[in-house]
Amino acid sequence: MTDTRFDVIAIGNAIVDILVHADDEFLNTHGLIKGAMALVDAETAAALYDKAGPAIECSGGSAANTIAGLASLGGRCAFVGKVRDDQLGGVFAHDMRAIGVHFDTPAAAHGAATATSLVLVTPDAERTMQTYLGACVDLGPGDVIADEIGGAEVTYLEGYLWDPPAAKEAFIKAADLAHGAGRKVALSLSDPFCVDRHRDAFAELVSKHVDILFANEDEILSLYQAETFDAALQAVRGQCEIAALTRGAKGCVVVRGDEVHIIDAEPVGTVVDTTGAGDAFAAGFLHGYTQGEKLAIAARMGNIAAAEVISHLGARPATSLKDLVAARMGNS
Amino acid sequence: MTDTRFDVIAIGNAIVDILVHADDEFLNTHGLIKGAMALVDAETAAALYDKAGPAIECSGGSAANTIAGLASLGGRCAFVGKVRDDQLGGVFAHDMRAIGVHFDTPAAAHGAATATSLVLVTPDAERTMQTYLGACVDLGPGDVIADEIGGAEVTYLEGYLWDPPAAKEAFIKAADLAHGAGRKVALSLSDPFCVDRHRDAFAELVSKHVDILFANEDEILSLYQAETFDAALQAVRGQCEIAALTRGAKGCVVVRGDEVHIIDAEPVGTVVDTTGAGDAFAAGFLHGYTQGEKLAIAARMGNIAAAEVISHLGARPATSLKDLVAARMGNS
Repeated sequence: MTDTRFDVIAIGNAIVDILVHADDEFLNTHGLIKGAMALVDAETAAALYDKAGPAIECSGGSAANTIAGLASLGGRCAFVGKVRDDQLGGVFAHDMRAIGVHFDTPAAAHGAATATSLVLVTPDAERTMQTYLGACVDLGPGDVIADEIGGAEVTYLEGYLWDPPAAKEAFIKAADLAHGAGRKVALSLSDPFCVDRHRDAFAELVSKHVDILFANEDEILSLYQAETFDAALQAVRGQCEIAALTRGAKGCVVVRGDEVHIIDAEPVGTVVDTTGAGDAFAAGFLHGYTQGEKLAIAARMGNIAAAEVISHLGARPATSLKDLVAARMGNS
Repeated sequence: MTDTRFDVIAIGNAIVDILVHADDEFLNTHGLIKGAMALVDAETAAALYDKAGPAIECSGGSAANTIAGLASLGGRCAFVGKVRDDQLGGVFAHDMRAIGVHFDTPAAAHGAATATSLVLVTPDAERTMQTYLGACVDLGPGDVIADEIGGAEVTYLEGYLWDPPAAKEAFIKAADLAHGAGRKVALSLSDPFCVDRHRDAFAELVSKHVDILFANEDEILSLYQAETFDAALQAVRGQCEIAALTRGAKGCVVVRGDEVHIIDAEPVGTVVDTTGAGDAFAAGFLHGYTQGEKLAIAARMGNIAAAEVISHLGARPATSLKDLVAARMGNS
């Protein structure tokens, strides 16, 4: 096998987050399901934004956040995703390139605006997201470059890509290219509601196309329509090479064949905003994995990255994850 | 005199801040003067942004930040400023209206984009700003509405308005309308370099058009080309009704006729980002002033607001200043 250019290349929705503090009453008044990501059209997005409080804007997107975490850990990364050539598209592209991520997907010159997600952060640090996919629906197989995918040790895909139709084709093309080059394919299930929307397709993907699966407890329960975590755990074993399952404050469980690791969560001072916890876990885990660490070490790196991201507002690291991991784990 | 609709109406540059962490080396490499606001053209702004790290975006603008502080204190506020009808213009307008501020200045349909300021925050919490005025240069006297100015107890103007030429006319028109309606005019000197650019005009403004002057130590030294703070203090006495002079960690000095108050700074845990300290002070002071508080009380409110804003990234309050002032001062 040839040398790699990238540790990880991710394909995902390219989204700018609009972060707002909100209370439970706001969610109830507007019929929003707490903790979930809902897709909305441009009009609904605008109407909700009008009613929301003052905001800050920052680059987001699930797989893009994972790539930002990997870059912060010192990984060699690339991202594939579609923005429009508008101001927020410029913001997204800047924030990718500013952290050293290879990002060359052409911005759309026509059509819908760059995607935004109104992220409502409640006092319990939970986030509820209303996402307008905008230009993300223009991502297609033409944006997946064989040379880039073949040059990455892991191709990382987010389940949310199953929402915009053409992105689904890009997803399958990328998985095929990766395997054709002898590389690994990782998938994050993204969101329990996303799993509800695409359960059968995801189950088939996991068993046929995916080497490394990331899911939180709600997502893996939804995928296998299981009643208990243990039932879901038994269901996923053998479906793919590695399953990394996150359980919030309970830490994570990682399985590969007969190997099972249960790694407790890292201590966190105050949980401020859980947005991006799963994205950050995947970053830490994949960094350990691509550096050749044992699974238990990779999982702990995931927990450390997640703990950092939930300690502040916003889904991307606010400090060097590389330094943080070194401080917590020594030179291991 | 008729009742007021607003406690304070502010006229200022409508700017979206792009907040980036940077080190001193970055400032030196690009020849930037630490702590200052420099005006740059679109090309320079774009070139510097390309070289800067990942950012977050939030509404800014000096007088607009003051109005956001006043709204957080429970004041009745309006803002006049010019954005373009683009995405960042939408962000600015949203953030004004979302906090209950009356903001009706029509967005420009043509011409330059909404103004941005690249705010480089160094590890010592100092901020260095590179501002592209963009659509702000289209603010003119036609945007100043007699009924709005006449209905506000105080019209608050930022010195930065002296940079875009047509805004200067808007500034003078607003001051004349305010005085014609028997109201007060307040001015913030904005920045020592801004004072350097417009020293004679500002000195004349202060003595002829301004009732309440806000300046920090560097600005008041620059205005009167004084060597010491005391010399500047003596120079400003009698030039306008009230001068509120801020001195960073040394607190503030407020003079009105023979009355002189020296109010120590509020304690702050960790100073994270000094952006907006002066803006927040003006908010707290003007809130006390328009509520009929004594000068020493108004000055303390200013110090409390400033202490809040420098304790986090970003120039607008992150918590309710009304609750904070109540907690610190009791029901006084």
